[in-house]
Amino acid sequence: MEDLQALLDDIHTTLSARDDKGKVATYIPELARIDPAHFGIAVIGVDGTEYMAGDAELPFSIQSVSKVFTLTLALGKHGDSLWNRVGREPSGTAFNSIVQLEFEKGRPRNPFINAGAIAVTDLILSGHKPREAIGEIVNFVRFLSGDDTITTDQAVAKSENATGFRNFALAQFMRSFDRLDHPAEHTLGVYFHQCALAMSCRQLAHAGLYLAANGRNPVSGSSVVSRERARRINALMMMCGHYDGSGEFAYRVGLPGKSGVGGGILAVAPGKASIAVWAPGLNDYGNSLLGTAALEILAKRTGWSVFGL
Amino acid sequence: MEDLQALLDDIHTTLSARDDKGKVATYIPELARIDPAHFGIAVIGVDGTEYMAGDAELPFSIQSVSKVFTLTLALGKHGDSLWNRVGREPSGTAFNSIVQLEFEKGRPRNPFINAGAIAVTDLILSGHKPREAIGEIVNFVRFLSGDDTITTDQAVAKSENATGFRNFALAQFMRSFDRLDHPAEHTLGVYFHQCALAMSCRQLAHAGLYLAANGRNPVSGSSVVSRERARRINALMMMCGHYDGSGEFAYRVGLPGKSGVGGGILAVAPGKASIAVWAPGLNDYGNSLLGTAALEILAKRTGWSVFGL
Amino acid sequence: MEDLQALLDDIHTTLSARDDKGKVATYIPELARIDPAHFGIAVIGVDGTEYMAGDAELPFSIQSVSKVFTLTLALGKHGDSLWNRVGREPSGTAFNSIVQLEFEKGRPRNPFINAGAIAVTDLILSGHKPREAIGEIVNFVRFLSGDDTITTDQAVAKSENATGFRNFALAQFMRSFDRLDHPAEHTLGVYFHQCALAMSCRQLAHAGLYLAANGRNPVSGSSVVSRERARRINALMMMCGHYDGSGEFAYRVGLPGKSGVGGGILAVAPGKASIAVWAPGLNDYGNSLLGTAALEILAKRTGWSVFGL
Amino acid sequence: MEDLQALLDDIHTTLSARDDKGKVATYIPELARIDPAHFGIAVIGVDGTEYMAGDAELPFSIQSVSKVFTLTLALGKHGDSLWNRVGREPSGTAFNSIVQLEFEKGRPRNPFINAGAIAVTDLILSGHKPREAIGEIVNFVRFLSGDDTITTDQAVAKSENATGFRNFALAQFMRSFDRLDHPAEHTLGVYFHQCALAMSCRQLAHAGLYLAANGRNPVSGSSVVSRERARRINALMMMCGHYDGSGEFAYRVGLPGKSGVGGGILAVAPGKASIAVWAPGLNDYGNSLLGTAALEILAKRTGWSVFGL
Repeated sequence: MEDLQALLDDIHTTLSARDDKGKVATYIPELARIDPAHFGIAVIGVDGTEYMAGDAELPFSIQSVSKVFTLTLALGKHGDSLWNRVGREPSGTAFNSIVQLEFEKGRPRNPFINAGAIAVTDLILSGHKPREAIGEIVNFVRFLSGDDTITTDQAVAKSENATGFRNFALAQFMRSFDRLDHPAEHTLGVYFHQCALAMSCRQLAHAGLYLAANGRNPVSGSSVVSRERARRINALMMMCGHYDGSGEFAYRVGLPGKSGVGGGILAVAPGKASIAVWAPGLNDYGNSLLGTAALEILAKRTGWSVFGL
Repeated sequence: MEDLQALLDDIHTTLSARDDKGKVATYIPELARIDPAHFGIAVIGVDGTEYMAGDAELPFSIQSVSKVFTLTLALGKHGDSLWNRVGREPSGTAFNSIVQLEFEKGRPRNPFINAGAIAVTDLILSGHKPREAIGEIVNFVRFLSGDDTITTDQAVAKSENATGFRNFALAQFMRSFDRLDHPAEHTLGVYFHQCALAMSCRQLAHAGLYLAANGRNPVSGSSVVSRERARRINALMMMCGHYDGSGEFAYRVGLPGKSGVGGGILAVAPGKASIAVWAPGLNDYGNSLLGTAALEILAKRTGWSVFGL
Repeated sequence: MEDLQALLDDIHTTLSARDDKGKVATYIPELARIDPAHFGIAVIGVDGTEYMAGDAELPFSIQSVSKVFTLTLALGKHGDSLWNRVGREPSGTAFNSIVQLEFEKGRPRNPFINAGAIAVTDLILSGHKPREAIGEIVNFVRFLSGDDTITTDQAVAKSENATGFRNFALAQFMRSFDRLDHPAEHTLGVYFHQCALAMSCRQLAHAGLYLAANGRNPVSGSSVVSRERARRINALMMMCGHYDGSGEFAYRVGLPGKSGVGGGILAVAPGKASIAVWAPGLNDYGNSLLGTAALEILAKRTGWSVFGL
Repeated sequence: MEDLQALLDDIHTTLSARDDKGKVATYIPELARIDPAHFGIAVIGVDGTEYMAGDAELPFSIQSVSKVFTLTLALGKHGDSLWNRVGREPSGTAFNSIVQLEFEKGRPRNPFINAGAIAVTDLILSGHKPREAIGEIVNFVRFLSGDDTITTDQAVAKSENATGFRNFALAQFMRSFDRLDHPAEHTLGVYFHQCALAMSCRQLAHAGLYLAANGRNPVSGSSVVSRERARRINALMMMCGHYDGSGEFAYRVGLPGKSGVGGGILAVAPGKASIAVWAPGLNDYGNSLLGTAALEILAKRTGWSVFGL
């Protein structure tokens, strides 16, 4: 393998020069204003070494990448009974589709499409007030990344709360099947805050390091999940982490990953490294265009694909 | 890692004792007669060492496992233009669903659901008579496994041709969208023969070895596909190899795999081994019940999951 | 034609004796308490003559029958521009299905399924506060039936507002496609009140008389809609008035009709009579079981089917 | 009502002048060659009086209009057990959609979409060879219209047999659910011949006269079906006769009708007249554009709509 820092610099230079940067998401007004020219990448090896290039320390809205952390948190609180609420299969439909929910009586296909993540958040809310649940999620992400400065962007959370009609539809629909325990306003209040978490690539890569290192954060020394659970979360990220573009991501990159509409992607090279990349422009599936391209180059040049050298 | 032969023996003993062996497929009359008590497993390391237990040398109908080999063959003949005919995403529906085909104008979601495999077979048929295409497929599988005794079971092929109405529906439907080049009778004539290939676990594991060894069969020394293509075929197997149970297989086993309705599964541990297992009883998704259980135990005890040690 | 009063008495006697009265709707708690033994029928001829049998003067919750009146009101206010918001085709799906809404980008198939009726109510709300819109609807129904004592049942409206998650999902979903102008809470506040209108068969039959008499109420002498619009509303009732049981109703009864989950049905025999029937038990499509049976007998014995003598 | 002949002449003149004549169906090669300028209309009163304008005596391919006659024939042979094979509800989807068939396990929604008509034809085939069944259908239509010169256009039948992949898909799909008793080739052989019946507007209006006259052909004096069955067939035509444009046809025309992709429409004014119109250009739903317009004018000026004067 070539020198990793030189590789990141090369990826940054190559991709920054591309004209087609994809389209910044417009359905959340606050996100629509982000400059599509941003590009950051951070790789943390399982030995804790950091490699970075570009805007790797600039915070962005992690959006759906947060679903990996709330799933981890909810599994810790509820164990495998969580799977009574949500499945483990790719959806074959868009991130916000409601069709599958009707055919499958309100049970979302997996925890990484919107409906599934809302169901997971509803579990975290159990026995809490929304504000407490938000606090618990923020604290958990701070713990994962070892960085107490991480916060949620209130303007983004508010913006989503005012315009997230589709998410309200998903929540109300699940509630009509008795699949949520709390009023849609409460569950979504928490959900929109978790999506509004602002993190840099560096912070995000640190937060995901436990998934690359068999469940234990090698920097802090904390045990986050069991070895088996880390493996399983990685499997879910591989199968469902990029909505209806998950097959394409597996084909091109070959790493478990989770994307967010803010342009961030967290990818995991098991036993090797945690990787976070950010480029705000999206492809047709709602995944970062240049972020995916960066990971494709990185996986090819490092041989980190889980599917062969 | 423990001793592999002892592990296979242990898996064989443990699973043979289970009462619930799943249900043998009944929709193909010839397959309905198979004794559900059969169980075989074969593992071939990338160094060529063989490990076997149970009915590992008894031939069975490999059915959809053949789709891995026809995809490999068709990619060799047509290159990436193959992807104009078929996608690379999980389907989110049953193996024989026609709904997605209507919504997506006759383009199957991936080469491992029935419609997609039929589209791939149609490409192999290009410029050939059906009989020649069947010969080419049989020869290719013999080449992959290094075993010239492999044949198709004519009774099974005939049985499927007489009762495979759903596959005829899929083929005619694709033809109505101009997605097949040949009459349904011709393409399905070839397709039913490839599904009727009779192979033992040992033969099947040998045939899949190139996928565990970066595209090259280390036993014969033959180069089958490029390193990159091997990786990509593995990715497709992981994402789509078990129909609408692919997520569950990834979650439990964590290896690229392809199942057949005859009860066989081919699984790949990249860089380590090729594995074939056979147990005729199926679970609700049409995948081998005990075969999946065997692979779950094997992956756990060997640490071969691609998602972490 | 036989004597109409004797016929109604006969229908009442015959159907009251039936054991299978269908199932009272349970998803609205207030409706679940209604005694399934109620049965009422009222026929008002276009000359104004009244015929009644059973509980014809007992008010019940008209629920979706109200959609005929709100459609009439909204067409009066917005004219044919209403059809930009909602289609005119049978849905082929259940009354509360959301699947079609996703496939057709938030435009409901017709004004008589829930989503379509909510879109119509949203138009009535234009320029009003919810309370004013409710008042306008109540006044319009009083005007149609010539009876100022008609009111909404506040307990039913409140009950639906607290449990109508599916309707909230439909409204939020349409709002995500910019198909509603008002917050879901406002539009549904009005919608639940229109559904909670409490009317007797006698009042309901009077209210629908304009549809049997070319748009003009022959009792009050008021012109309600044009001749052409009356015809068109009747056509819509025939095609879409009984959700996914509309074909069955046309086949058996042969009259334009609109059912409600409270067990009421308004049917129109153009040029002859307006008919209201009430029996709270429902069939599998959510339409009154005995009410449909009553109308089938009535249509057969009177020869009022629009499809032939 | 104004003078009927003058009205037809006026309709003919008005519509012939229209520039937008719709698009002639191209998916059946033989039909693609028809001149879109043709326009014919024939009205036969229940007293047997004939009114005609334009190309009313020129034969055209009646295509799906034949489904009314095969339904009538099959009901005569099998009675209401026919409804075990096919439903009575509008489909909410296109004429050749296969999606509903999968969701409803191979049972077509109604006898007027392609799948349903194929299921009806399969019943007519019972106990016959295909050639005999074709003969029986031709003879039945000759009997209905009182005209022994009616034949099928072999070139059209052959053309459809060679290119009707979608219909083969529908048939094979139903057969996979055991919903057809005969090989797809046999059932479709008959089906394509019934669709290829060549009739003029005059012949077609005569053939449909029994539906306007309570089941009895007043010209020949023959009893075709019971009064009740005539009514029910009319109801089915109203609800399902124009595929996913049935609601629009009911709204605009208000008469039971059945369209064919050859540009013909048979409409029934119960108790008044049988009407056939032909104009080859189609609208977006596959129904004759000018034919529908002609019927709308006719219904409006005669007051024949079943939904009010």
